[in-house]
Amino acid sequence: MHLTPTAAGVFPIAPTPFAADGSLDWASAERLFAWYDGLGADGTTVLGIMGEAPKLEPEESLGIVKAAVAGMPGKPVIVGVSAPGFAAMRRLARDAMEAGAAAVMIAPPPSLRTDDQITGYYAQAIEAIGADIPFVIQDFPLTLSVIMTPAVIRRIVMDNPSCVMLKHEDWPGLEKISALRRFEADGSLRHISILTGNGGLFLDFEMERGADGAMTGYAFPEMLIDTVALQKAGRRDDAHDLFDAHLPLLRYEQQPGAGLAVRKYTLMRRGILASDAQRKPGAGLTPAAKAEVDYLLARLARKDARAAL
Amino acid sequence: MHLTPTAAGVFPIAPTPFAADGSLDWASAERLFAWYDGLGADGTTVLGIMGEAPKLEPEESLGIVKAAVAGMPGKPVIVGVSAPGFAAMRRLARDAMEAGAAAVMIAPPPSLRTDDQITGYYAQAIEAIGADIPFVIQDFPLTLSVIMTPAVIRRIVMDNPSCVMLKHEDWPGLEKISALRRFEADGSLRHISILTGNGGLFLDFEMERGADGAMTGYAFPEMLIDTVALQKAGRRDDAHDLFDAHLPLLRYEQQPGAGLAVRKYTLMRRGILASDAQRKPGAGLTPAAKAEVDYLLARLARKDARAAL
Amino acid sequence: MHLTPTAAGVFPIAPTPFAADGSLDWASAERLFAWYDGLGADGTTVLGIMGEAPKLEPEESLGIVKAAVAGMPGKPVIVGVSAPGFAAMRRLARDAMEAGAAAVMIAPPPSLRTDDQITGYYAQAIEAIGADIPFVIQDFPLTLSVIMTPAVIRRIVMDNPSCVMLKHEDWPGLEKISALRRFEADGSLRHISILTGNGGLFLDFEMERGADGAMTGYAFPEMLIDTVALQKAGRRDDAHDLFDAHLPLLRYEQQPGAGLAVRKYTLMRRGILASDAQRKPGAGLTPAAKAEVDYLLARLARKDARAAL
Amino acid sequence: MHLTPTAAGVFPIAPTPFAADGSLDWASAERLFAWYDGLGADGTTVLGIMGEAPKLEPEESLGIVKAAVAGMPGKPVIVGVSAPGFAAMRRLARDAMEAGAAAVMIAPPPSLRTDDQITGYYAQAIEAIGADIPFVIQDFPLTLSVIMTPAVIRRIVMDNPSCVMLKHEDWPGLEKISALRRFEADGSLRHISILTGNGGLFLDFEMERGADGAMTGYAFPEMLIDTVALQKAGRRDDAHDLFDAHLPLLRYEQQPGAGLAVRKYTLMRRGILASDAQRKPGAGLTPAAKAEVDYLLARLARKDARAAL
Repeated sequence: MHLTPTAAGVFPIAPTPFAADGSLDWASAERLFAWYDGLGADGTTVLGIMGEAPKLEPEESLGIVKAAVAGMPGKPVIVGVSAPGFAAMRRLARDAMEAGAAAVMIAPPPSLRTDDQITGYYAQAIEAIGADIPFVIQDFPLTLSVIMTPAVIRRIVMDNPSCVMLKHEDWPGLEKISALRRFEADGSLRHISILTGNGGLFLDFEMERGADGAMTGYAFPEMLIDTVALQKAGRRDDAHDLFDAHLPLLRYEQQPGAGLAVRKYTLMRRGILASDAQRKPGAGLTPAAKAEVDYLLARLARKDARAAL
Repeated sequence: MHLTPTAAGVFPIAPTPFAADGSLDWASAERLFAWYDGLGADGTTVLGIMGEAPKLEPEESLGIVKAAVAGMPGKPVIVGVSAPGFAAMRRLARDAMEAGAAAVMIAPPPSLRTDDQITGYYAQAIEAIGADIPFVIQDFPLTLSVIMTPAVIRRIVMDNPSCVMLKHEDWPGLEKISALRRFEADGSLRHISILTGNGGLFLDFEMERGADGAMTGYAFPEMLIDTVALQKAGRRDDAHDLFDAHLPLLRYEQQPGAGLAVRKYTLMRRGILASDAQRKPGAGLTPAAKAEVDYLLARLARKDARAAL
Repeated sequence: MHLTPTAAGVFPIAPTPFAADGSLDWASAERLFAWYDGLGADGTTVLGIMGEAPKLEPEESLGIVKAAVAGMPGKPVIVGVSAPGFAAMRRLARDAMEAGAAAVMIAPPPSLRTDDQITGYYAQAIEAIGADIPFVIQDFPLTLSVIMTPAVIRRIVMDNPSCVMLKHEDWPGLEKISALRRFEADGSLRHISILTGNGGLFLDFEMERGADGAMTGYAFPEMLIDTVALQKAGRRDDAHDLFDAHLPLLRYEQQPGAGLAVRKYTLMRRGILASDAQRKPGAGLTPAAKAEVDYLLARLARKDARAAL
Repeated sequence: MHLTPTAAGVFPIAPTPFAADGSLDWASAERLFAWYDGLGADGTTVLGIMGEAPKLEPEESLGIVKAAVAGMPGKPVIVGVSAPGFAAMRRLARDAMEAGAAAVMIAPPPSLRTDDQITGYYAQAIEAIGADIPFVIQDFPLTLSVIMTPAVIRRIVMDNPSCVMLKHEDWPGLEKISALRRFEADGSLRHISILTGNGGLFLDFEMERGADGAMTGYAFPEMLIDTVALQKAGRRDDAHDLFDAHLPLLRYEQQPGAGLAVRKYTLMRRGILASDAQRKPGAGLTPAAKAEVDYLLARLARKDARAAL
């Protein structure tokens, strides 16, 4: 199954589960993907920035892909293949597709500056991995320091038929979604799927601007799924009510660097992960921070019973 | 009146009001500072990053300082004096103090990298402006790309007796507040005031970690004032309830680049500013964004009557 | 007199002379510009990055402009007006032109990334200073971290009729000169003057690629003038022989950060500046470094008598 | 054989030879290392930034290590193991040592800013690869944008007994060598080897400041070897005479980005590499640039017969 430009809905970004000793926790991985599937997620993305991908051995990376494919039967798995060199990118991309992945996701290296450098990089990357593999553009300036204008994204999409999706996490980014959809309306851009990231911090309005869904790792994917569904059903106020109830926790989770620790801790408290350990280097939460998350969970539970732990 | 390390409470960051033709709108400036004063703000900060300071002529900058001093009688006015050269910094600092300011605020230039470069820069800046002027460290890595560890902040404070306050807007930053307060507890750091920025996005927990208040420009300073007061009164849940009600709008305002436009638009809708114009270069809100802010205001009004416009 | 796109030859970048106590040394400034004039320089550029411009008071900046205009009668003076805000840029630009300057030079602020941001910035800057003032684009990625492709430079030139010159100091940059001259040959770019910087490190080949001369601060402007003249006369080997003789010293001077200290020390040893002092902040040469410069000067004197001090 | 802090002399940085079709050219690799050995190089460094390491498959990387070990019997081979994650770094480091390497070289990732981040990174890296593997610090701010003060380097050296060498390529960097040697003199730093990079652009003076030799890829390693030997023999003027003769070409080669193409082209013209091809992405020289290199080689041949091709 290959990902297509009509993909939509919620693709949770999967953290990679580790045991306290740093070894990969395959049982938690299995539980995680089964849980995503049962919640009604439309697919998943593995080996993203939040997946601690650079800390994995090649066999472990491939193992995670296989666990996701097995755990979400019939649903597309997207695999982050960003790498400092095209040799490693190509190998992981082709191995992942052979293992059943539906697409790969490519982020630009932080050194890129000019429009031509960015479009040139994607041309070379696609030449390296092969034009037969569907790919997702990751647009994440806050972390990657690469700024892609809507016109640059259009050039990448129009120059590369295998581009099927934009993972949008520019910040601020609402006007960018509108600009891209205007390009589609005026015929200068073919349709691609736009899923949004940034931890979901603007998902409420992103849907109204034309996004197709979310691809992010908030520890309550149920909320992402429901918000997307409510917006698609035209129930705007209900969507915002649910979203706003989660915003205090979501905002807390969306802290650069610290976010993954919050997410893993919450998923552990929810019983999905056996441990909130990160492989080194990676800092856990302080007791003060854990108490803050607990407090936010308790407050959230008053409005959304799924947070009652 | 000179600012001291015991300063606390809420110091709104003042936007600089312009008319649609780009001229300085002195009437709105007068109204703004009187409004801050009436709300119970403990002081104000002018010519900060949000104050469009680099767009002002020297006489205009001084005019804003005088307007703030006149509009908030008996309350401290802090003046941003960050500049690419020490000549301009010194002149504005001394002129501002002569005009009645209580302190100046200094941000590190984006080129600084090592610990020694940062502490060396502050030593030189204080030598340039004079050690008789109280100063505030602005710690804002997201915008300035300069990273100060708690130990570096301690060195600046201990090396420079005229340092009285930290404007804290690291992100994430909760652990930094805790680390600095631990330094005070172990005797390695003298007490300074810590006011927090980042649009207030973490004010709820920052107060619990030891902050003394907020210095930021959220367009409802009433909420900042009330949250600080509730936390100081030990009414934790009430503080969070109020904060959470405002979070959807606050989050929307806290978008890099776009934030000032949201803030000015809201202040215009509230009747404080006559126009939401920014002096060039500076983009306003699109109609879609204005509609989103209006929607957020309407939703907020259901929980906080002060948002009913 | 206004600078035109036919400008050519050598425009030394003038350092700003200070006395040991940090005060401006007007006598040395007078001597410096008279010396440039006598050597046959075709103009000069003041208040550039090497001119310690941000350390000057506004009256001092204007004083330097006037000293250059008076010291080089009938020759064009270019004034660096780069500033964090357009208000300061406009004021200095208009004051400088009124004082007799021939053009201004504008560098992009380091925060610019995309092609549109760069061209947009120049459009706004020209709107701010006025389209009646000839301007020079400063393209210096190593220091400014802004990367302008040849196509972006073309857009700036074609969009702004008042653009007359490119100060080229990309590194590497030979292919950029060739690309711009190809644009002129194919009719997509009108002719502008290209003077090169980078301390002159590639001047030998830059002239062969199509540069019109040099705008840099090497402490032997005589060599720059002779190399440009020899290349224009078609005496390639002679040009390289002279250039190569100076290269060990020129290379030593072309060290980021340390270069100005080397330059001022050499100009002091040559009797042009009374002191090699920089205004704070700014480090001088260590004794070891001075001894190295002395050694290089002694070696150079064996090949170029003008270095015998 | 493990590298020790007494290592000295010249370790050429080896380019990775490719055929025109992008495949690894093992015959040229064999010729290259035999040539280094015959010239009297004291060792070699492979898989550095100039070695196009991120473009290699893991087996190819290990193949290059083995070719170097086989081609330079009894001489130390240093292996660049910088990687975005510690898993890949550990694997390559341990495989390389097992294959006969003498040490590994580690560059800090570009995201590091504060002193603590840098020293913390090295602590984690050494924990990952094992403290039994000698390592080299690569200090290359121009490319890596990480600035290490002498005090930070001292902390890394003193905290990690397996640190044996600094590859010094700060720019400017002469004072840094002096500062580190002063640390040794005052007893605060144990002795380590310092080999210098930057293409050799300051090798003449670096030796006088206390460097032990060079680790760089200039296409005439003979000159590096002779300059180091002359300086060690106290023949200062002779060392500078030889160095200055090569400086025009060396300067041309030392252009960021373009340098590797110049180097491979020269090595091809010298008969060492069968092709000057780089694996994608990587641009070759234009005809104009090749003609410039040819001209520089012809000029050099008048002073150093080894350049007569």
